[in-house]
Amino acid sequence: MLEMRLDGELPVTLDDVREAYKRIRRYIHNTPILTSQSIDRIVGANLLFKCENFQKTGAFKFRGACNAVFSLNNEKAGRGVVTHSSGNHAAALSLAAKIRGISANIIMPSNASPVKIEAVRSYGGRIIFCKPLPEAREEKADEVVKESGGVLIHPSNDPPIIAGQGTAALEMLNVIDNLDFIFTPVGGGGLLSGTSVVAKSLKPDIKVIGCEPKNADDAYRSIKAGRILPSVSPDTIADGLRTSLGTNTFSIIKKMVDDIVLVDEQEIVGAMQIIFERMKIVVEPSSAVAVAALIYGRVDVTDKNVGIIISGGNVDLTQFFKSLG
Amino acid sequence: MLEMRLDGELPVTLDDVREAYKRIRRYIHNTPILTSQSIDRIVGANLLFKCENFQKTGAFKFRGACNAVFSLNNEKAGRGVVTHSSGNHAAALSLAAKIRGISANIIMPSNASPVKIEAVRSYGGRIIFCKPLPEAREEKADEVVKESGGVLIHPSNDPPIIAGQGTAALEMLNVIDNLDFIFTPVGGGGLLSGTSVVAKSLKPDIKVIGCEPKNADDAYRSIKAGRILPSVSPDTIADGLRTSLGTNTFSIIKKMVDDIVLVDEQEIVGAMQIIFERMKIVVEPSSAVAVAALIYGRVDVTDKNVGIIISGGNVDLTQFFKSLG
Repeated sequence: MLEMRLDGELPVTLDDVREAYKRIRRYIHNTPILTSQSIDRIVGANLLFKCENFQKTGAFKFRGACNAVFSLNNEKAGRGVVTHSSGNHAAALSLAAKIRGISANIIMPSNASPVKIEAVRSYGGRIIFCKPLPEAREEKADEVVKESGGVLIHPSNDPPIIAGQGTAALEMLNVIDNLDFIFTPVGGGGLLSGTSVVAKSLKPDIKVIGCEPKNADDAYRSIKAGRILPSVSPDTIADGLRTSLGTNTFSIIKKMVDDIVLVDEQEIVGAMQIIFERMKIVVEPSSAVAVAALIYGRVDVTDKNVGIIISGGNVDLTQFFKSLG
Repeated sequence: MLEMRLDGELPVTLDDVREAYKRIRRYIHNTPILTSQSIDRIVGANLLFKCENFQKTGAFKFRGACNAVFSLNNEKAGRGVVTHSSGNHAAALSLAAKIRGISANIIMPSNASPVKIEAVRSYGGRIIFCKPLPEAREEKADEVVKESGGVLIHPSNDPPIIAGQGTAALEMLNVIDNLDFIFTPVGGGGLLSGTSVVAKSLKPDIKVIGCEPKNADDAYRSIKAGRILPSVSPDTIADGLRTSLGTNTFSIIKKMVDDIVLVDEQEIVGAMQIIFERMKIVVEPSSAVAVAALIYGRVDVTDKNVGIIISGGNVDLTQFFKSLG
């Protein structure tokens, strides 16, 4: 879609997020912000959980997908949208396209799990299978774009996606005016970069922290090295965070995010269980990554007001409990 | 505590529930009412979930326990409270007593699960172990009452408990004025009887439905027979519903409740999984019983507005997922 701006400006600004919010607010849930005295005691801070697990399609991804779909002019939209994600973005794009009344072509590997296939179908997406090889997905997507004339919507790097994801932080800062920190997970970086644009533009003193699995630490390494160093075959339970930063998300995160911190697999599972037991909400492992960074003390937040974006709640529970051993 | 009234009046009235609400509202959460388009589609009705899984101590039981504890005069309160529950009532009574600054003596069998022991301890309850035999609990409780002069608070049959449990429905009817049905689970009957007093007093047309596991169907059999027929060694995953009706709850339910319906163990687990996956909230099996009655069509509620009291969220998750097989 839009290219990265080359004039030193960031590819997404606060105004873009505000425009996105006007565009999508009628379609999305303004999700609740929950608190937990019990987890506050563990962390020693005041935590505010922005619960995107209660968002439509079960994840923040619906914000970006909605913004991307409703940003298209009628002519482009008429040709439909295409993506090669098989996770939350695919479900989100399917529903956004359905609401606009256009088609969504979702490229998925032939060995994708039945749960994911069913989720995309239930939201009205049209699934096109490809060989289960990394390069096959993009090849197939290019082929479908050429044939259908549809618009490829990348899961995290397109500016309208980043602007849409930033609306969760915008909603939060509209009602909470004393945040010292915002923590989000980081995979492809759409949520973290959108959040950082909003937070730093509205309140430059807020510290924005990206949280990443040790086993998929491309953002951590990339920011350190000053160039994009993708993860190769990352092996983490946080399936939403296996993707790597793109050009736009990297350029924003590099400039706007205060720190990237890492947690291990055991800490992710531990945080997920604490959230289940204390807050009585279902979150996916990717969301638990940000909470794990707090519970296991990666940043000193003593007595601070800390916002956390709970990114989603789509988890194969049977699978998860196997991981508890 | 109070005796059952013998003059034909019910042991608990709407005024009692209103008094209870004034007494406890500063200590409890006014829990959120959630909706789910996805489960609405499955059931074919408009469902409103009053989420007591987000109540303090993780269950509605905190309402009744608070009312019982704060109903005591200073002299009685000073001698502390006693109970022989090992589940949600024990945790709820411990926290209510702690808030009032009095002692709570909780009789538990020596083989109680470490999770339950830890929960009671974490809320400040003092645990007194007894032999793991049905009669040993009551004997030990009588002994502790005699020694300490403390007040025995029954988990479901005491009128202040029933009045406290009714405040969940009171909060719901304060903000939702078009309910056609209210569904609650039924174990000892405190929640169902309190709910029915409120619903039938405020809006006589509301149908009140009690939902019970087939494997612990004492309320169903008792109402049919016109006398209390307790369950003997009931075997159900819905651990909060293994108890049987008492004199007060029976007399209210007999008069005020429209129907008791039954669900089997597989339906309970199925409903619990649907709630996890679609609503992203953690509920205990007892809560799933009421939702199962709707999902598996025990009552025709087509296009109706249906309130459901989600009773609690205290579940040993590892245990639960074993039950999924």
